Amino acid sequence: MTNFTIRNEDYAERVRRSFARQGFMGFLGASLTDVAPGRVEITVPFDAQLAQQHGYFHGGVVGTIADNAGGYSSFTLMAPSDSVLTVEYKLNLMAPSDGETLIARGTVIRPGRRLTVSRADVFVVRNGVENLCATMLGTFMTLENTSDDPARRNPSIRG
Amino acid sequence: MTNFTIRNEDYAERVRRSFARQGFMGFLGASLTDVAPGRVEITVPFDAQLAQQHGYFHGGVVGTIADNAGGYSSFTLMAPSDSVLTVEYKLNLMAPSDGETLIARGTVIRPGRRLTVSRADVFVVRNGVENLCATMLGTFMTLENTSDDPARRNPSIRG
Amino acid sequence: MTNFTIRNEDYAERVRRSFARQGFMGFLGASLTDVAPGRVEITVPFDAQLAQQHGYFHGGVVGTIADNAGGYSSFTLMAPSDSVLTVEYKLNLMAPSDGETLIARGTVIRPGRRLTVSRADVFVVRNGVENLCATMLGTFMTLENTSDDPARRNPSIRG
Amino acid sequence: MTNFTIRNEDYAERVRRSFARQGFMGFLGASLTDVAPGRVEITVPFDAQLAQQHGYFHGGVVGTIADNAGGYSSFTLMAPSDSVLTVEYKLNLMAPSDGETLIARGTVIRPGRRLTVSRADVFVVRNGVENLCATMLGTFMTLENTSDDPARRNPSIRG
Repeated sequence: MTNFTIRNEDYAERVRRSFARQGFMGFLGASLTDVAPGRVEITVPFDAQLAQQHGYFHGGVVGTIADNAGGYSSFTLMAPSDSVLTVEYKLNLMAPSDGETLIARGTVIRPGRRLTVSRADVFVVRNGVENLCATMLGTFMTLENTSDDPARRNPSIRG
Repeated sequence: MTNFTIRNEDYAERVRRSFARQGFMGFLGASLTDVAPGRVEITVPFDAQLAQQHGYFHGGVVGTIADNAGGYSSFTLMAPSDSVLTVEYKLNLMAPSDGETLIARGTVIRPGRRLTVSRADVFVVRNGVENLCATMLGTFMTLENTSDDPARRNPSIRG
Repeated sequence: MTNFTIRNEDYAERVRRSFARQGFMGFLGASLTDVAPGRVEITVPFDAQLAQQHGYFHGGVVGTIADNAGGYSSFTLMAPSDSVLTVEYKLNLMAPSDGETLIARGTVIRPGRRLTVSRADVFVVRNGVENLCATMLGTFMTLENTSDDPARRNPSIRG
Repeated sequence: MTNFTIRNEDYAERVRRSFARQGFMGFLGASLTDVAPGRVEITVPFDAQLAQQHGYFHGGVVGTIADNAGGYSSFTLMAPSDSVLTVEYKLNLMAPSDGETLIARGTVIRPGRRLTVSRADVFVVRNGVENLCATMLGTFMTLENTSDDPARRNPSIRG
């Protein structure tokens, strides 16, 4: 396990506030179940509204929480004046996400001043047993001097 | 524009039925706005419940419809006894998805017996003007002799 | 075809000089066969030393020229004081690269101040007929005020 | 560390023979420095012919050995009658590959009957110190009843 240097003592509270502002997380029923330096966990209970045609969690839900877990992992290591943006991610769906709960665990691989590379593993819990169902590798950008709060947002957030 | 050979005259109806079975598409308010051989378009109107922290469409919504547009594009070229599965995709988010409607247009790049490679471009419509905000490149697997209908599903859909 | 704005009249000469400085391009026998704003083509004739175990072009050669075609496409749109760096790319190998010549054609999808997204298609020519064998989607970074020439290089090229 | 089930006692020898048949590996000066179930290491000493314009290892060399380390990791778990093919990979270049040796370490994440997902980390060694410079996530296909030897190759290796 790598030890990361934090640049903001308030990192966990910042991630929680940002997560709470994402309407889509509430809509999915997702919650932030762990926040640590360079590491974030997001959990979603199953609901038929989150399903694809076979009745499993839709790949879009898997991708959404994988991306978010990677992005917020990166955000834990940023400065108080920074905001975070997903540049890109790649997701491998490796097994059907058939179960009662979906858990994404994000981890920073390499933090950088401008770009941070993170991964996330996604597990589906079925009858209490976790099974790795997807893995994500992504690139996240630091937006310097950009508020994460939409009320004070900088309309031009991309260079 | 490539001309594709279809193996199922009923391809459009099959895509529509599969799409209708995905609880998550209804939940997002997504609709299938075009289906042609090797090509599918999916549209989602904005709603605050689909937003990220800056008030734009959440990247998870962008990824979901990009993946689905790529997957269903691939599905249009498959045989009546086949089902489709996303193996993996990569998404580049290129501009804020700030607007009233999100549109994903999927296209097959290369169909194959087992694997089909497709891309999707995602546009955000703001004041009636389309702007490319993301692009997806993905790999989709043909599941032979597998029903797309959960009532008759094969529980072991991955090899 | 998109029309791109160039920020450096000397763009083609700059790409040629940079390409010529890459020892690896000469080693592979690769040449720059086209340079236009937002667009670059790289060609490599077959040689047994470039093969994988089945006697086709090695995927590493395919990936190398796809990445380079995408990177140099991005570089054509940068300012005279900028250098370019590959952040990441994803490559789909879609058909065996069995033939006498390999051609990568890169195109910018979206230029940005810091990040440019480009794609490249790779074709293998067999008996004079081109066949699409791979496609690449990548992210390239602008390094401001960084020489592309190693004699004057900034040792800390990544943030 | 996951324990993998091998289906071929001769896995290490098979990987070594296949590697030896790849003209491109010899051309790069690459060697196979470790082979274990689900795990392969490839090493390349620096040479000016392997450089990009700043004098570091070219990203193409990084991508080549990352792809190969992932592919051969997957191959260690396949049956004696199987061959392996790269479907796709994504590579993040995270630091300049400035050093005397490049090492790619591949590991299987999830083996499957048809598709195996593997990753590889690439390290550059400078003054004896290893530094993570890139990471790869890829999908590799099992080609059943297909010889890995070109003298007996099946000309139609892709479905």
